[in-house]
Amino acid sequence: MQIAVIGSGSEHEARAEEVGRLLAERSCTVVTGGLGEVMAAAARGAKEAGGTTIGILPGERRADANQWIEHVVVTGIGHARNLAVVASGDAVIAVGGSWGTLAEIGFARRLGRPVVVLDPGWQVEGEGIERAATPVEAVELALSAAEAVG
Amino acid sequence: MQIAVIGSGSEHEARAEEVGRLLAERSCTVVTGGLGEVMAAAARGAKEAGGTTIGILPGERRADANQWIEHVVVTGIGHARNLAVVASGDAVIAVGGSWGTLAEIGFARRLGRPVVVLDPGWQVEGEGIERAATPVEAVELALSAAEAVG
Amino acid sequence: MQIAVIGSGSEHEARAEEVGRLLAERSCTVVTGGLGEVMAAAARGAKEAGGTTIGILPGERRADANQWIEHVVVTGIGHARNLAVVASGDAVIAVGGSWGTLAEIGFARRLGRPVVVLDPGWQVEGEGIERAATPVEAVELALSAAEAVG
Amino acid sequence: MQIAVIGSGSEHEARAEEVGRLLAERSCTVVTGGLGEVMAAAARGAKEAGGTTIGILPGERRADANQWIEHVVVTGIGHARNLAVVASGDAVIAVGGSWGTLAEIGFARRLGRPVVVLDPGWQVEGEGIERAATPVEAVELALSAAEAVG
Repeated sequence: MQIAVIGSGSEHEARAEEVGRLLAERSCTVVTGGLGEVMAAAARGAKEAGGTTIGILPGERRADANQWIEHVVVTGIGHARNLAVVASGDAVIAVGGSWGTLAEIGFARRLGRPVVVLDPGWQVEGEGIERAATPVEAVELALSAAEAVG
Repeated sequence: MQIAVIGSGSEHEARAEEVGRLLAERSCTVVTGGLGEVMAAAARGAKEAGGTTIGILPGERRADANQWIEHVVVTGIGHARNLAVVASGDAVIAVGGSWGTLAEIGFARRLGRPVVVLDPGWQVEGEGIERAATPVEAVELALSAAEAVG
Repeated sequence: MQIAVIGSGSEHEARAEEVGRLLAERSCTVVTGGLGEVMAAAARGAKEAGGTTIGILPGERRADANQWIEHVVVTGIGHARNLAVVASGDAVIAVGGSWGTLAEIGFARRLGRPVVVLDPGWQVEGEGIERAATPVEAVELALSAAEAVG
Repeated sequence: MQIAVIGSGSEHEARAEEVGRLLAERSCTVVTGGLGEVMAAAARGAKEAGGTTIGILPGERRADANQWIEHVVVTGIGHARNLAVVASGDAVIAVGGSWGTLAEIGFARRLGRPVVVLDPGWQVEGEGIERAATPVEAVELALSAAEAVG
């Protein structure tokens, strides 16, 4: 199973790292946007727990990926790569995040991907969006939702 | 000036049409996603008031555009064309809308484009997002914001 | 009718400008990638002959467009915008050009858009690709092919 | 190292499969467009030799990937995903192929990725494009070129 972890904000890195670690322990591949902060933390958590990571970069250079990305996808399409990040997840977990994350939540739901927002995070309500209080809960909800959709 | 009108929902067409008409009367080009409902209504309002319309389509065929689109851009990139729609506006007006519209609001703000949400609409708060109660107010706010950014 | 003019190389600007002028005289809208050299020359030729021009930019800023672009589409998707440029033409005329132009010729034919290569230009053979010796011939062939496909 | 294998045509599958196998034996990850014919054959060859495969899909559904794709990237951007396929390779090997492959060769060179065309294939000449007579030679040339660029 592939789970996309989206978001930003250095204050959310510790929780993103735990999300990544928990996903790896559940044998899920972690898909992120491949850059820094939450993206790097989630990949680091997954990688250090022996998991697999995919980074989907906005730019044109493989070297832009953070060091915990095992499989690098270089898209060259800028922010439009946000669509690919969430589309590549069987479910999506949002950790912190700003406007790009909001775009990803919208795209994820547009494509029918379940979204879990780890508190605190975007206050967006709608079918297919659940909220979690902890990384453990976020991962549980994401895996359950992905299985239900699958 | 180019103003993007985004959204969906047949119940919002009357107000979208008025937004399109008002923009044309202010000599603004109306940019939309080129398909139906709000997109078609905004283009119809603009065109019938003698304005100019651009439709940025997700598919690969020019014939997908609604009949009020004067200049058709065929992107072939699916929902990722949402990025192009809002990026092509000096400001963005949201009329109704679902998940795709949320993605557009996120992208618009990510790129620094001012957004006006015409009530009722997505409850999203943040810098650069204003709310309007009427089409007249939405157009006024959008033009003021576009001039301030420009 | 919309005709895409693609290519690059400052040595090809004079012929690109004539292509743009001839297209405008035939009431065709000229679609380009919106930047410099051949793209700017084709738009200049069209605009100075009273025609209409659309520029489909790779970046995120409207200000990147050359001054002869009337309708600016800001895609933010980098070189992937090449797909949108050719998809938006009922036919495509290539004037000079390097690797990006080759990608555009491939995409144009992938989508069934007729291509006319103005000599000298890419040596690519295949169904739907014609060669022209002069701007006049290029425009004639492009319009005939677009009508045949349309 | 990641090597992109591009192309199409069922008559080229045997050679594509050998390319995939040889790349896996050289510990390269094989990146393809994730669908059928050459894309499936290259992935099959790599997978059956114990290698790693990434498929970058044009559509919106993970289920579109062929069964030999281990890591699936769902882009939703149609043919524009061709840019991501070649951008994600340290080098590119073309096996057979039609217009989409030509677009990929153009994009690969636009981004500075070395290209090896396995005969018979597109007759495109230019800096950074080499031709190979056999799968063994194609893989050798691609790895040498990737190392030289890297």
